[in-house]
Amino acid sequence: MSSQKAWAVVAGVGPGTGASVARRFAQKYSVALLARKSANIDPVVEEITAAGGKAIGISADCSDGKSVKKAFEELKKAMGGATLAAAVYNVGGRFIRKPFLELSEEEFESGWEANGRGAFHFSQAVLPLLLDRVDASPEFPPTLIFTSATAAMKGSALCASFAAGKFAMRALAQSLAREFGPKGIHVSHAIIDGVIDIERTKDWKFDHPDAKIKPEAIADSYWYLHTQPRTCFTNELDIRPYIEKW
Amino acid sequence: MSSQKAWAVVAGVGPGTGASVARRFAQKYSVALLARKSANIDPVVEEITAAGGKAIGISADCSDGKSVKKAFEELKKAMGGATLAAAVYNVGGRFIRKPFLELSEEEFESGWEANGRGAFHFSQAVLPLLLDRVDASPEFPPTLIFTSATAAMKGSALCASFAAGKFAMRALAQSLAREFGPKGIHVSHAIIDGVIDIERTKDWKFDHPDAKIKPEAIADSYWYLHTQPRTCFTNELDIRPYIEKW
Amino acid sequence: MSSQKAWAVVAGVGPGTGASVARRFAQKYSVALLARKSANIDPVVEEITAAGGKAIGISADCSDGKSVKKAFEELKKAMGGATLAAAVYNVGGRFIRKPFLELSEEEFESGWEANGRGAFHFSQAVLPLLLDRVDASPEFPPTLIFTSATAAMKGSALCASFAAGKFAMRALAQSLAREFGPKGIHVSHAIIDGVIDIERTKDWKFDHPDAKIKPEAIADSYWYLHTQPRTCFTNELDIRPYIEKW
Amino acid sequence: MSSQKAWAVVAGVGPGTGASVARRFAQKYSVALLARKSANIDPVVEEITAAGGKAIGISADCSDGKSVKKAFEELKKAMGGATLAAAVYNVGGRFIRKPFLELSEEEFESGWEANGRGAFHFSQAVLPLLLDRVDASPEFPPTLIFTSATAAMKGSALCASFAAGKFAMRALAQSLAREFGPKGIHVSHAIIDGVIDIERTKDWKFDHPDAKIKPEAIADSYWYLHTQPRTCFTNELDIRPYIEKW
Repeated sequence: MSSQKAWAVVAGVGPGTGASVARRFAQKYSVALLARKSANIDPVVEEITAAGGKAIGISADCSDGKSVKKAFEELKKAMGGATLAAAVYNVGGRFIRKPFLELSEEEFESGWEANGRGAFHFSQAVLPLLLDRVDASPEFPPTLIFTSATAAMKGSALCASFAAGKFAMRALAQSLAREFGPKGIHVSHAIIDGVIDIERTKDWKFDHPDAKIKPEAIADSYWYLHTQPRTCFTNELDIRPYIEKW
Repeated sequence: MSSQKAWAVVAGVGPGTGASVARRFAQKYSVALLARKSANIDPVVEEITAAGGKAIGISADCSDGKSVKKAFEELKKAMGGATLAAAVYNVGGRFIRKPFLELSEEEFESGWEANGRGAFHFSQAVLPLLLDRVDASPEFPPTLIFTSATAAMKGSALCASFAAGKFAMRALAQSLAREFGPKGIHVSHAIIDGVIDIERTKDWKFDHPDAKIKPEAIADSYWYLHTQPRTCFTNELDIRPYIEKW
Repeated sequence: MSSQKAWAVVAGVGPGTGASVARRFAQKYSVALLARKSANIDPVVEEITAAGGKAIGISADCSDGKSVKKAFEELKKAMGGATLAAAVYNVGGRFIRKPFLELSEEEFESGWEANGRGAFHFSQAVLPLLLDRVDASPEFPPTLIFTSATAAMKGSALCASFAAGKFAMRALAQSLAREFGPKGIHVSHAIIDGVIDIERTKDWKFDHPDAKIKPEAIADSYWYLHTQPRTCFTNELDIRPYIEKW
Repeated sequence: MSSQKAWAVVAGVGPGTGASVARRFAQKYSVALLARKSANIDPVVEEITAAGGKAIGISADCSDGKSVKKAFEELKKAMGGATLAAAVYNVGGRFIRKPFLELSEEEFESGWEANGRGAFHFSQAVLPLLLDRVDASPEFPPTLIFTSATAAMKGSALCASFAAGKFAMRALAQSLAREFGPKGIHVSHAIIDGVIDIERTKDWKFDHPDAKIKPEAIADSYWYLHTQPRTCFTNELDIRPYIEKW
């Protein structure tokens, strides 16, 4: 294996899960952050760099194949001869709650664009790089993680768009796990069931303390998944605050 | 209720399930058959007409909103003042089995187009008509059935496109059942698990007799679903030949 | 096949589902009703007999192997040379809702006794008879149906006993379907999700009309399952009132 | 919190998962090992003690309420004023693969005894102790983990006994998670899907290297679950070797 530090790539970096995952993986790897708006990425890149890590930001729209292709050309240039150790797809798209008959095609499609098509392009870009790393006998199996939601398990009323997208993402994660697991790649689908504790949800009140999921805890979970040896791959796990009803 | 015969509409009519469902529902209703190719529809329309039923064929591409809109304008004209009693979405799309890294975007999207976007447009077209019928206190609750597959429950290796589409269809069916059930509409998701006995599969050999699902039996199942009273809605059922491994 | 009318056996007959299923199957078959208390059976036997059908009642405790053995000796005597066409296991046991730490062993076990052990003894008694009937090429495939509940899919708080029992019943139904389906026997697991409309629930008020499941509708569903040809077996279906939250 | 080391208790200790879990938790806690045969426990107790940890063995049959009660009286005496940090129920019982009609009642019941009744008695014994620890504001939330199997998700042919038991265990784990999660206790159900790498399976050959799950990797997973903060509880995760078909 090259003596260079390996990389991790995180797509879908806002102030919550994506940023925490990037920080966590930056403790061991160089990290590339992908998001549509560089405003979301820049502070995280700066923070990781200031802390002595290595991070780059690339703007990309994962639902657009050309944009993903361009982003990964940039990433590969930055990587030089290094390998890709982990990839996290954290693009959620809009959560639309609306009577079905009021949904526009564009609104219904948005769930698929983020969770289906975007996950497809991202997976096609990262899997060849993760396969390369298998040959390098890394400490931890190369890993691809999808951030999902309870909507992947249950199609609730008024949530057709988001649920259709998350169900599709779960199908993709299973299919990839079954195809690429035997090739040494760990594919996981993480069902995040609860409100995440970020600036935007700061004022959402609950009866109990700790009612919101800390993004750092999600990041720790993803890191744990990454460290599982190949005799012990977890394809699916749920994550929820202790007080969540389910 | 109008003295005119009510209608059923079946989208996705080939030689198998769609045609059998149309024949079955034509025993009570006038039926409209939608398919991309009129070559698939015409013989069924003729057959139903010859048997004393009423049937019309309309060509439409359900994945195209404009095409669906045009088809339903035509259908409503044909319906006159009659109501819509049942709608069956039977569009399956291509079944693609291929290594993930060889899939084109267009191939991956095809599962969604048929099972996600197409189901969306069809549902948006039929639900207002089915709601109208609720007010007419019909003998059987207005019914919307989706033809699905085992791929809605399990994302197999090499089947990412089809599985992503069918998972999305299941999400949609659940979401619609939860939103429109309380309004009196019966929404069902039928998991067809096995080879269907049609011309194309005639030479597929099995060790056991009756190894293939008769499309007439699927049609009977759909008819049964349609006749369930609103105190007893089935949202999901599986259908498979007795010898199928599962 | 013998010219004698075939039989159906229903275990767990109270005033709701069991009685309705017995009445429905009595339209074609002689029926045997099993229950612990003959007070539950006698009126149904009388009613079926008065309506021109044939019915017998046998008291039995399905959780007790000897009691089941004795009941089936009695049944076989009554059947003479006739065959068994259908068997419905409708024993639910007590529904206990209680903090886990307050459950006695006897209370926790009661869910298993009714839904696990009882279903085991009943299945062992009926399957050899149903297999005999396969050889007689009957009109409808011999059928074994288990009445289950949402608790088979979700272990809710305070419901450990009932859920453990119903989960176990679902496992049994799947295992039997996979073993005996290929031998020609139709095994189904019916998830009844809602309040059943019987004397005991008469005063339970809901905002909507028809909020409770009519037991006759459940019986129709079971009859439909029984009539499915062997190319088209349904192993699992859910049944709920249109207004049920799920 | 008391300055004494807290305890972990592991029930069902053979040479595989149970022993590895005990070793792993002994890195932080005093551990109590429960098994029917002290021959299974003694070498692990010696090994942990030799390595500087603290371990005691108690023989107990978890399917027998009195035996469990006695074992926990012994354990509480050993614990003194210390608290219980984690409890792992790892009793699997016999795996019986047999035609259904050849199963004796005793064989069918064995799945329930180990996975249902035994899990009940163990849970009733540990939950009050785990609740006590919540009040002590421990570093990691008190944890109860059940070792389960794919048979908890699918009732395969010929496996009715084991599947009924594991389905029931899953129901119990869900019910306890929903009741005790909000009280601060982390309840998890771990689906182990694959052959475990122990002496008994040493000669089972596979095409791939690393085809068997290392028990140490399962123990690491359980430890990870234990360390999740209460904003981020995982109730269910699957674990399988990379080459496993599923």
